[in-house]
Amino acid sequence: MPAVRTQSLDALTQGVLTGEVRSIARAITLVESRDPARLELLERLFPHTGRAFKLGITGAPGAGKSTLTYQLIPRLKARGYRVGVLAVDPTSPFSGGAILGDRIRFDDALEGVYIRSLASRGSIGGLSRGVPPAVRVLEAAGFDLVLIETVGAGQLQVDVRFVADTVVLALVPEAGDIVQAMKAGIIEIADIYVINKADREGATRMRLDLRNALELGGKPKGWNPPIILTEAIHGKGVDELVEFIEEHQQYQQQSGGWEARRLQQVEWELQSLIHDALEQHARATTRQLFSAETLQAVLHGAENPFPTLRAWSLYGSPHAVGGT
Amino acid sequence: MPAVRTQSLDALTQGVLTGEVRSIARAITLVESRDPARLELLERLFPHTGRAFKLGITGAPGAGKSTLTYQLIPRLKARGYRVGVLAVDPTSPFSGGAILGDRIRFDDALEGVYIRSLASRGSIGGLSRGVPPAVRVLEAAGFDLVLIETVGAGQLQVDVRFVADTVVLALVPEAGDIVQAMKAGIIEIADIYVINKADREGATRMRLDLRNALELGGKPKGWNPPIILTEAIHGKGVDELVEFIEEHQQYQQQSGGWEARRLQQVEWELQSLIHDALEQHARATTRQLFSAETLQAVLHGAENPFPTLRAWSLYGSPHAVGGT
Repeated sequence: MPAVRTQSLDALTQGVLTGEVRSIARAITLVESRDPARLELLERLFPHTGRAFKLGITGAPGAGKSTLTYQLIPRLKARGYRVGVLAVDPTSPFSGGAILGDRIRFDDALEGVYIRSLASRGSIGGLSRGVPPAVRVLEAAGFDLVLIETVGAGQLQVDVRFVADTVVLALVPEAGDIVQAMKAGIIEIADIYVINKADREGATRMRLDLRNALELGGKPKGWNPPIILTEAIHGKGVDELVEFIEEHQQYQQQSGGWEARRLQQVEWELQSLIHDALEQHARATTRQLFSAETLQAVLHGAENPFPTLRAWSLYGSPHAVGGT
Repeated sequence: MPAVRTQSLDALTQGVLTGEVRSIARAITLVESRDPARLELLERLFPHTGRAFKLGITGAPGAGKSTLTYQLIPRLKARGYRVGVLAVDPTSPFSGGAILGDRIRFDDALEGVYIRSLASRGSIGGLSRGVPPAVRVLEAAGFDLVLIETVGAGQLQVDVRFVADTVVLALVPEAGDIVQAMKAGIIEIADIYVINKADREGATRMRLDLRNALELGGKPKGWNPPIILTEAIHGKGVDELVEFIEEHQQYQQQSGGWEARRLQQVEWELQSLIHDALEQHARATTRQLFSAETLQAVLHGAENPFPTLRAWSLYGSPHAVGGT
């Protein structure tokens, strides 16, 4: 996307604030990009942001995250929320398998719901960095509940904590699923556990195992994460899930955990914007310090690259110059 | 680890060059760290590095990577290689499930083999950045074949291409395994495919499906990746695998692909060292630009952080000052 002019930024801001779908789509595309204008847009939207409740749904592919999302939406709407969905899961039907998709679904359940899939720039930073700015766009457009569906694969899962106020982890009664979740480091970070497809054998057993696994980490102080059995495909257990989501919100507000968590979110958001800039700088620096010829020479042992790197890290790196 | 003195760096260098196990262990710990002395050590070791053949073994947990590794080792030793193993797979028995482990195994098959597990700093950059410098330590210690076992999860798999000369992908005859590998983006990057546990139903069928999947991407130019059926647990098919590994090496050397690939490895290695320094800088910059009080104010909407970010990206970031 070419640099966006001030005039069109004003128009874009207006479009977002009035909830115009095309503007929302363009704004998210802009804030996902590395166009410097994205910071200008975010600056304009900022006064209208920061108020949505962010609900993360994570879990391995096949755990039924999208079905849960689909079932949650009408129930959340019935409670008065304006719901936006950000799908960072490339396998989600909400993203249709495509990298990007914008649509308002004209399904009864999904009417008025803005659904957007985000590219998961997975390699660096795990969760798509586009999430926090996309949340700001949706907030400015008047959505007050943003549901973030993330694929549950390793690091991707863990980062959801830095963008969501409440994290729901969906599991299925399958041998090894708890072990996988523990390995991925997700087991400790969920606020609510769902054992979906609970009609399958082993669901009750899994709840027991999960409770034991959770208690291995010591007595929970404060919030004791519930484990809910659901059959999302038939809507079973989803009302209970909604109740626990609201309970968790209330708990956090009363305990003060809300504030600490949101501070962490803000910090992560700003840090990831800074990281982005520096990442581009890492590539540029490599090319600057090491030309194609130098790389050849390094490869063949004719040039030792470490003196250059040491000099850079002592004198040339932003560390050395005292930062900014 | 505290900063290492020049004198002890000399001793450490000597210890590595003479192949002393404790020195190798200490050196790898140092180069894995962020201690600035790591660059000094690498500078000293550099003239003795760059010559090992790096063999990557990747695949999903349960695909039998460690069994393959265990079977490959004596065969590679019989061909005259001194073998070192770097396990980036936290589920590998070679790493014993621990984050770090150093040992020379006194198993007949593994005698003289140096085995080391590396922390997979998964969040940023996928594959452990410790791999290229750890390879240099092993090279300096006289190992001329480094076997890199990496867990096959998403991005982690893909990065193995940037550290290994030959990538072996281990699959098992299971519905969906090919699809998973395609989703993870690994399917195109392997040089040799192994369908392990080939006594299971569906192995021959899987070979056919995999061949078809590979040809979807168009006719291979040059190297046509073989698909080998193995039963690693009984050593079946492993001799054939070794032959194809050597054939791939020869092919690359003759075709010139070797040079291009190794250049990419060198570039990735240097870039990741630079990235590391800048990543620390991102954290420091965030703290510098946004104090705890400012973050509070941002959270409550009392301060708009984007003007500061814009100013930083215009004037303060290393981009703006023209790099180094």
